[in-house]
Amino acid sequence: MTEAPAGKPVLAVDLGGTKIVTALITPQGRILSREYSPTLAEEGVDDVIRRILTTATTLVKNADLPYSSLSGIAIAAAGAIDTEKGVVTDSPNLPGWHNIPLKARIEQATGARTFVLNDATAAALGEHRFGAGRGVNNLIYLTVSTGIGGGIIIGGKLYSGATGSAGELGHMTIDLNGPHCPCGNIGCLEMLASGKAIAREAQRLIAQGARTMMLEMAEGDARYVSAQTVANAAHKGDAVALSVVNKAATYLGVGLVNFVNIFNPEMIIVGGGVGKMGETLLRPARKVVAERAFQFPASVVRIVSSELGDNSGLFGAVAFVADADRSL
Amino acid sequence: MTEAPAGKPVLAVDLGGTKIVTALITPQGRILSREYSPTLAEEGVDDVIRRILTTATTLVKNADLPYSSLSGIAIAAAGAIDTEKGVVTDSPNLPGWHNIPLKARIEQATGARTFVLNDATAAALGEHRFGAGRGVNNLIYLTVSTGIGGGIIIGGKLYSGATGSAGELGHMTIDLNGPHCPCGNIGCLEMLASGKAIAREAQRLIAQGARTMMLEMAEGDARYVSAQTVANAAHKGDAVALSVVNKAATYLGVGLVNFVNIFNPEMIIVGGGVGKMGETLLRPARKVVAERAFQFPASVVRIVSSELGDNSGLFGAVAFVADADRSL
Repeated sequence: MTEAPAGKPVLAVDLGGTKIVTALITPQGRILSREYSPTLAEEGVDDVIRRILTTATTLVKNADLPYSSLSGIAIAAAGAIDTEKGVVTDSPNLPGWHNIPLKARIEQATGARTFVLNDATAAALGEHRFGAGRGVNNLIYLTVSTGIGGGIIIGGKLYSGATGSAGELGHMTIDLNGPHCPCGNIGCLEMLASGKAIAREAQRLIAQGARTMMLEMAEGDARYVSAQTVANAAHKGDAVALSVVNKAATYLGVGLVNFVNIFNPEMIIVGGGVGKMGETLLRPARKVVAERAFQFPASVVRIVSSELGDNSGLFGAVAFVADADRSL
Repeated sequence: MTEAPAGKPVLAVDLGGTKIVTALITPQGRILSREYSPTLAEEGVDDVIRRILTTATTLVKNADLPYSSLSGIAIAAAGAIDTEKGVVTDSPNLPGWHNIPLKARIEQATGARTFVLNDATAAALGEHRFGAGRGVNNLIYLTVSTGIGGGIIIGGKLYSGATGSAGELGHMTIDLNGPHCPCGNIGCLEMLASGKAIAREAQRLIAQGARTMMLEMAEGDARYVSAQTVANAAHKGDAVALSVVNKAATYLGVGLVNFVNIFNPEMIIVGGGVGKMGETLLRPARKVVAERAFQFPASVVRIVSSELGDNSGLFGAVAFVADADRSL
């Protein structure tokens, strides 16, 4: 068993659909420096990988830390990831990314060992090691943004299942007569409680003539009403926006009831863009849990907001490298 | 770390609503002897405990094995169990059992250390150690009988959650507009795919005038049509019974899709009275999984019948004692 010396930083990359965030972070979770770059996935896979490398190289040069002095590079990416092989199998947010050997490409260019993992998985690990879930052995992390993803921590460790795809918590049927989901399933939690679902519901109400400030906020075009518009309007007390949030939060609560009855977790952490609504979203969801879940597990579970927000994936990448060292 | 010498048998008890099964079983899973007794829960808690003790004492006497020579006593009981304290908190199948300190009562009378655990949990452990799930690290066990219970094996170990109540797999909402469940939740898997649900659906169709041999099998009284009647009629090719089984199996499949997407398990084992229908139930359920679950986890999961049938709880009790020794 070898262990990376304390202080040897990780180069953590959050590869999202719109931007690439790269940061040098110590194993203790201190961010030494950070760089942003647009993803521009439409320009092709090679260009995106070049942007990752350029940003990374800028960081390590400015910090005067050669790649060889890092404990590793870890990339949290949206989509289906084969973590063992370091391959991006498929990604809805990165068009054209099918079976891209990202680990191999980055290792070739940098000489540093590289890991690739799913971004929601990384966020779960990040919150567990550095955020709201510190010291919590069994927890569920749910990222509610455009879609809904998740991660499961059991016995203080990431649970990844038989082939690494465990934790698709957004793709659980909660309404078997509900809408078809692009994933192939029916009435998924994601179809009812995600940012997409929130925007769709707001647009539907506006089309029905609901009086709301949201239309004005979207410059008169309902197609531009997004989950963010709904959140902003709800924050200002707009009744229609609040009803949309409440509906989504109730659906979210139904999903949380399932997790409470199945997992009896100590904690459920809600992150992601929609999760940033915090108590506006969590209060009605907790009410559903209190009303419907088994009493004893419902009374012990803490349902809380992400502490690390947009950084949870980056911190998870750091934790992943540390775990890889421990398991050597 | 101490370990029970190989060969020191466990006295395993399956405490059900209708009968008590008691068996002496070696740690290797060989049944040395077995006794049955009716539960007769209506005669009161003390009487049931006396029957457990009488049966147990008969067994150990006949085998010429004093209680002190056992590796322990383990009781798998239906209902909510506080395993740490060995208390039956509540049991729908054992009227009058509220906060009964079963472990303490049995230990007092026998001097042998005693464990109490939930029967579905025990069955999961039994199948994992001695049945269909031997050597399988991550599996979901589902018992489909009057109700639906379950157990989760992760990393080769029972996962019991923060407070021991994990695995309430029958109480997951799959139809948020569905029927209310006595558990307090709505549209639970148990309300749609259990023996109760199967009997109810058959009775509904008969009330609507469906032509089926089931009415005759129940001596002309639809109230006596049970899940067993439906299974028997389906086995004989009765179209109405087959349609009822198919419907329940499809709902079961929806539940399995959720488990596949959430857990990415190597295996799902279906046991319980309804589970005995085997392929009649599993074939349509597997079809739903193939159609709706994420492709990769769906392609690796093996959905199989219980191997141990009615003995899975007894074998699980044996495994539980062995695990307690290992964790000392």
